[in-house]
Amino acid sequence: MSALSVGRKVWVIPEGYIPGQSVSSDPALVSHETACILNSSHEDAEISITLFFTDREPCGPYRMKVGARRTLHLRFNDLKDPELVPRDTSYASVIESTVPVVIQHTRLDSRNPNIALLSTIAFAA
Amino acid sequence: MSALSVGRKVWVIPEGYIPGQSVSSDPALVSHETACILNSSHEDAEISITLFFTDREPCGPYRMKVGARRTLHLRFNDLKDPELVPRDTSYASVIESTVPVVIQHTRLDSRNPNIALLSTIAFAA
Amino acid sequence: MSALSVGRKVWVIPEGYIPGQSVSSDPALVSHETACILNSSHEDAEISITLFFTDREPCGPYRMKVGARRTLHLRFNDLKDPELVPRDTSYASVIESTVPVVIQHTRLDSRNPNIALLSTIAFAA
Amino acid sequence: MSALSVGRKVWVIPEGYIPGQSVSSDPALVSHETACILNSSHEDAEISITLFFTDREPCGPYRMKVGARRTLHLRFNDLKDPELVPRDTSYASVIESTVPVVIQHTRLDSRNPNIALLSTIAFAA
Repeated sequence: MSALSVGRKVWVIPEGYIPGQSVSSDPALVSHETACILNSSHEDAEISITLFFTDREPCGPYRMKVGARRTLHLRFNDLKDPELVPRDTSYASVIESTVPVVIQHTRLDSRNPNIALLSTIAFAA
Repeated sequence: MSALSVGRKVWVIPEGYIPGQSVSSDPALVSHETACILNSSHEDAEISITLFFTDREPCGPYRMKVGARRTLHLRFNDLKDPELVPRDTSYASVIESTVPVVIQHTRLDSRNPNIALLSTIAFAA
Repeated sequence: MSALSVGRKVWVIPEGYIPGQSVSSDPALVSHETACILNSSHEDAEISITLFFTDREPCGPYRMKVGARRTLHLRFNDLKDPELVPRDTSYASVIESTVPVVIQHTRLDSRNPNIALLSTIAFAA
Repeated sequence: MSALSVGRKVWVIPEGYIPGQSVSSDPALVSHETACILNSSHEDAEISITLFFTDREPCGPYRMKVGARRTLHLRFNDLKDPELVPRDTSYASVIESTVPVVIQHTRLDSRNPNIALLSTIAFAA
């Protein structure tokens, strides 16, 4: 398959905001920010994420692995080490990988009785 | 027209998720993931799609044709061969074409009484 | 300003679908597909749009002008010559300009009591 | 970190529209257009924004700073100098920076009882 080494090693998502409240406790419908990462290569990808804020120094790196030929739909809500991502706070993220990957950003917002969605391919640096 | 050979031959959509439930049985309003493919060239495009998952090997190829000077708004919901796309499951897709095409990803989500939409031009590899 | 010649001359929007019904008759809230075109240059832009369909030959060109240093938020709903854009029908569009422009695609969908939005920068060919 | 000089110096957002009404007076839920700007470099970024309209000359520049290693989620609603951004009016924006930055556009629309969202990485000129 020609898709073996598809993608880039550095990606940027300037928008980040996890609403502190949700109308649903169903995990699928709790408000969340997601980075959908595809590693279509034959090597595992070591990922490291740095978070940037409005009025403090950056935080990170958050580290994780995406296996060869696997996708990880990573919820920023679940990041815990080195620290939780603050709720109701604007942030941005830079995502670096040891092998080329492709990243798409999605937010599901369920502050209102109905959900709202946004999505975009992240910026390939 | 200068648009004769517009596009690329390999595209990536890292986000994929077909909700298992919908509030509507109107086909237009059932939750669906779509890859809108434009083939503005004068040759038919042979398309092959590979799906990637979180914890199993990739699945595919799914094969289809987009005629010369035609658009296909392909619903992942409708893919059946080699297997149905699992519902309520995260996936990603790599789409390859024999001629340059342009691809845009859209999800209509009708798990709630009202619809939500997301869309982005896919990543051109 | 360094933005004098920003953009490209050929753009593609693979997704197109104008819902035939809306819950609102307020022009701002009627379901619509929009191509937001920015011409930041000092020359008028002559625009021509070709529409592609699933099962018939392309239609066009639709012609219009975007003045120097002006933006046009063009609703596909309003296109009439050479023919109306069919409702409840999948289409795609290729947009060509005599000077570099930048194009963003937006849909406001008001089939349900509440609106849904999608948007993406179009594909720069 | 390899992300030190990530991004571009000129960005374009062709879509702009601030609804004049909102159902909520909660600042987080008032209808707003946002440019999320990430400056991951070690130098402060001097930003200048020019707004383009349908039927009048451009307006600007609006000037602001985004500190080194900081993100600014700028609401167009808050711009006041040289003039307020008109409500219920189509506009487009060109954003220039003295150092490379990455910009994502987001609109939260709360004209209806429920919110709708759109987002896209801006066009990197």
